[in-house]
Amino acid sequence: MIDHAAKRSVLALSGGVGGAKLALGLEDVLPAGELHVLVNTGDDFEHLGLHISPDIDTLLYTLAGKANPSQGWGLEGESWHMLEALAQLGGETWFQLGDKDLATHLWRTHRLAGGQALTAVINELASQLGVASRVHPMSSDPVRTTVHCRSESLPFQRYFVEQRCQPEVTGFSFEGIGNARPNREVMTLLRNGAFSQIVVCPSNPFVSIDPILQLPGLWQALADNPAPVTLVSPIVAGIAIKGPAAKMMAELGVPVTALGVLAHYCRHYPGLVNNFVIDASDATLASSIDEPGVNVVVASTVMKTRDDKQSLAHAVLDLVEG
Amino acid sequence: MIDHAAKRSVLALSGGVGGAKLALGLEDVLPAGELHVLVNTGDDFEHLGLHISPDIDTLLYTLAGKANPSQGWGLEGESWHMLEALAQLGGETWFQLGDKDLATHLWRTHRLAGGQALTAVINELASQLGVASRVHPMSSDPVRTTVHCRSESLPFQRYFVEQRCQPEVTGFSFEGIGNARPNREVMTLLRNGAFSQIVVCPSNPFVSIDPILQLPGLWQALADNPAPVTLVSPIVAGIAIKGPAAKMMAELGVPVTALGVLAHYCRHYPGLVNNFVIDASDATLASSIDEPGVNVVVASTVMKTRDDKQSLAHAVLDLVEG
Repeated sequence: MIDHAAKRSVLALSGGVGGAKLALGLEDVLPAGELHVLVNTGDDFEHLGLHISPDIDTLLYTLAGKANPSQGWGLEGESWHMLEALAQLGGETWFQLGDKDLATHLWRTHRLAGGQALTAVINELASQLGVASRVHPMSSDPVRTTVHCRSESLPFQRYFVEQRCQPEVTGFSFEGIGNARPNREVMTLLRNGAFSQIVVCPSNPFVSIDPILQLPGLWQALADNPAPVTLVSPIVAGIAIKGPAAKMMAELGVPVTALGVLAHYCRHYPGLVNNFVIDASDATLASSIDEPGVNVVVASTVMKTRDDKQSLAHAVLDLVEG
Repeated sequence: MIDHAAKRSVLALSGGVGGAKLALGLEDVLPAGELHVLVNTGDDFEHLGLHISPDIDTLLYTLAGKANPSQGWGLEGESWHMLEALAQLGGETWFQLGDKDLATHLWRTHRLAGGQALTAVINELASQLGVASRVHPMSSDPVRTTVHCRSESLPFQRYFVEQRCQPEVTGFSFEGIGNARPNREVMTLLRNGAFSQIVVCPSNPFVSIDPILQLPGLWQALADNPAPVTLVSPIVAGIAIKGPAAKMMAELGVPVTALGVLAHYCRHYPGLVNNFVIDASDATLASSIDEPGVNVVVASTVMKTRDDKQSLAHAVLDLVEG
């Protein structure tokens, strides 16, 4: 195994729970402060007047060691007294707001209302939570994912939480993305060659990674960067470990396999992916992948334990020396 | 004792804890729905982006039977997990925000942001909480009490909560009061002769009742109304049962007695007060009160038990037949 302390920083692209698992493994394995995570904010939304950033918070809570270990999001030891009282008032309770979690939302909303940019607010929040890695919102500008379903179009959280991903998906759009500027610090670090590798975490391609990559200029900046881009498949043996990725692929007519995932990236972002990591259970697929320029790697990608996360992180980081 | 069911409605003017005690007694004694409380909103403020109405909430929680019985404000069985988490983020924690109480603030703030008037929002809130009486904000327009102290001027809650009423007071102002319209429904009820009596609760004269009475046209409408106005002294035996009223009077050079209270009302609102209720412990003061047109009544005004509250309510209501 290579001593990763000698390397430069790593940039990971992430949505929520699945991406946070690999980010935690990467943080464990890399020297402190060398992990940068660029996080989807397309599922941010305003709820009861609060600015909520679900993927950002999952990353922060996970890296701070405060995440609820069984569900992978939210805070450990959470209570729900506000939500119970809100229910008695007839308020909206479809979105789970824990009492401790509320402090984050109130704190963030108040600072944003005071004119601070989301990037600055999240930097400060990460610092207060004691997060050693850098967690970057993909943009300070608002981007809002809409899930187009057969019968209606839904804001992401309505689809994801309220409707529990039940409606049949026909496509996605990202409101505001045309005017959203990619995270400036990450763009500067890219230009300065700060990263030894770029990792696309095993997050949902459509609603977690696409919003990041479709920010104006971003995917081309990643593709043009000398640092290799390593994509970890979120589909293992035909299913998604967490979330609706497999269901969405089926509804969109994409093969629900690691190949389907890679085809999506290669069609929309040609030349972006250099390494494609698939799970050992999909090893037989390796020979059928013939995307030019893509190096296929087989590893254990299912991250149940902390060791699993660190092992996958090592497997990914070893690629830049391979 | 008189059957108050035969009477018309009663309007009580109130600040927070002290006024809520008498309001509860009045509600117990009056037929359901016959108590209207016009409540100070001068100590409303915006905190962490939330619209907080401390006096309104004290009235609502008290009349809903949900108030913390030992402190008289806030909710019974409250928890403080949000505030603890906010402290860990370095957020502002000088104002106590309980987890259940937060539901009220979020609910109200969200509705106000949606364009509803404070009066309508509080009507709905009272209904959701199961409050049988009517709780009226003194105005839907913002009025904000400033406490002028020897060294600085402070927004009310900074003075009251953060500074624990320590600074020496030199005066008060009510920002926005010149343009604030008195509660329209209460003004209509006054015009229509709906009230048999108007009760000024034993609340702080300077920061609870003055903001109400100084709304344009309000005190004259009360004075001109045929319903007698009964003032209950908040000062008993030279002290305030709760809050900084006595300290403020001393600092302003007003005698810290029931006489000082009455003199304040008679100077600023001549002809308003018809009945003045003082505590039995101040009975010897009665003979020294010679404000023309003011009928002095001695009663037990210290309300520790529910019976105390009901007895004082009876004593007050009996006056309209006396």
